[in-house]
Amino acid sequence: MPLSFFSERIEAAIADAVGMTQSGMPPAQLTSAVQYAAAPGGARIRPTILLSVAMACGDDQPAVTNAAGAALELIHCASLVHDDMPCFDDADMRRGKPTVHLAYSEPLALLTGDSLIVLAFDVLSRQSPDRALPLIRHLATRTGTPFGICAGQGWESESEINLSAYHRAKTGALFIAATQMGAIAAGQDPEPWEELGARIGEAFQVADDLRDALYDEVELGKPVGQDEIHNRPNAVTELGVDGAVSRLKDILGGAISSIPSCPGEASLAKMVQATAKKLIPSSKLNRVPGE
Amino acid sequence: MPLSFFSERIEAAIADAVGMTQSGMPPAQLTSAVQYAAAPGGARIRPTILLSVAMACGDDQPAVTNAAGAALELIHCASLVHDDMPCFDDADMRRGKPTVHLAYSEPLALLTGDSLIVLAFDVLSRQSPDRALPLIRHLATRTGTPFGICAGQGWESESEINLSAYHRAKTGALFIAATQMGAIAAGQDPEPWEELGARIGEAFQVADDLRDALYDEVELGKPVGQDEIHNRPNAVTELGVDGAVSRLKDILGGAISSIPSCPGEASLAKMVQATAKKLIPSSKLNRVPGE
Repeated sequence: MPLSFFSERIEAAIADAVGMTQSGMPPAQLTSAVQYAAAPGGARIRPTILLSVAMACGDDQPAVTNAAGAALELIHCASLVHDDMPCFDDADMRRGKPTVHLAYSEPLALLTGDSLIVLAFDVLSRQSPDRALPLIRHLATRTGTPFGICAGQGWESESEINLSAYHRAKTGALFIAATQMGAIAAGQDPEPWEELGARIGEAFQVADDLRDALYDEVELGKPVGQDEIHNRPNAVTELGVDGAVSRLKDILGGAISSIPSCPGEASLAKMVQATAKKLIPSSKLNRVPGE
Repeated sequence: MPLSFFSERIEAAIADAVGMTQSGMPPAQLTSAVQYAAAPGGARIRPTILLSVAMACGDDQPAVTNAAGAALELIHCASLVHDDMPCFDDADMRRGKPTVHLAYSEPLALLTGDSLIVLAFDVLSRQSPDRALPLIRHLATRTGTPFGICAGQGWESESEINLSAYHRAKTGALFIAATQMGAIAAGQDPEPWEELGARIGEAFQVADDLRDALYDEVELGKPVGQDEIHNRPNAVTELGVDGAVSRLKDILGGAISSIPSCPGEASLAKMVQATAKKLIPSSKLNRVPGE
């Protein structure tokens, strides 16, 4: 299945969701900011994984899968808008564009994040009840606290950090949501899918650490060296570039072998590898002379 | 039905919801801030209205009603935490205590608001599907944009304000949610209940304007004169104190006559009057010599 097939479904579903905020006589700036924050430009990795899992499980209700993918990406977009704000990373650029608080204002960035969170649950609430409710429950668990991305960010305010809980919540949570929501959207039990999501999350964390260390701001579309500035743990600092690349390959191998038995198991394995390749183009790694 | 009966149900339901954030090994500061933001001290007017409507409609599934009341109040608490932040009202005090960004930090206030929004939907997602989904849909509509409190705040960033859309979204939305969610929680059609919520919202707006003009900071538990500072429309500025009191009485009369026919119609009317009395104690008005 080519990646462009996923991309079209995902962008259409996100556009439908954002369209819900444009009815009636909405406040123009907030409406524009919500659209700006959810606009194409990101890798859409989480909904791509969600759709891949749903298709591997049969994808018998594509509208539910699309809504689930859109909802998950809206939560991710909300977290980026809030994380970029001055009281967190104070970032100027995101996806190659000015961040929402710079393009609009701080109040509008705060409201945009809030609106996107609410919109995610709104989108899911319009699906068939037997799948909508577990989708909402899983998305809420992986978004809020203690097991979601809010908790992940919250750990950064602690003097003593539980590293495993921190990484699992901050980066892992939305990947676990991706695999589990993909299964639920296709009418399957989400439990066997947790490990795949957790392992993809670990791989993504290591890949993110590599990009933070290897790329410059123009290539990455956002500030680099943020981990060093904010004194956050980083796999490249701990293992070096070669060590981090080796660790990434190990995690991906574990991820693929954790895929539960399902009709589309083989193509899902290929999908995970293709997604991993998008994270770190090998041309970039070849240009890095050792560590 | 004495107000203390509602109060006990509401506080227990909120405590149950907040308890969900305390399982496992949560980040301590965020967990504490969520509890602080949802702690008793507010009037709990919105869930009181929700429970009153549910009881007037038979309240045949009290657990659903309690969850709905808690979810609605959590959204209200979230909006207070975010509205108090430096980029909005920059308020020091709320409910007689330091605001969350002062008691904890700005990052934790942002995350606390986000976590409370997510928790509200999480709580509802655990109820029976036939009521949970419409509850989630109505709460999302009245929280996000274009018809919810996010849109209401968003209007304050516009150069030309649609006053009717602004008031209906900013103050009215969660009162409409209160009456409609009360009906849904009791298995009734929410549509006939929209007008009562909208009118209570208008009454609350006028009462809030009166308190902003008549009370001092210690009595109100938050800064006064905010409308004048932020150049927001205010009924006392437009109509004077006597005019605003008269307008408040008119709106309440309309609210009571809009109550749909239901088993508990008469006691609900009393409840609306009792709630109105809590908003502006008559002793305070008697001490104000005319305008």
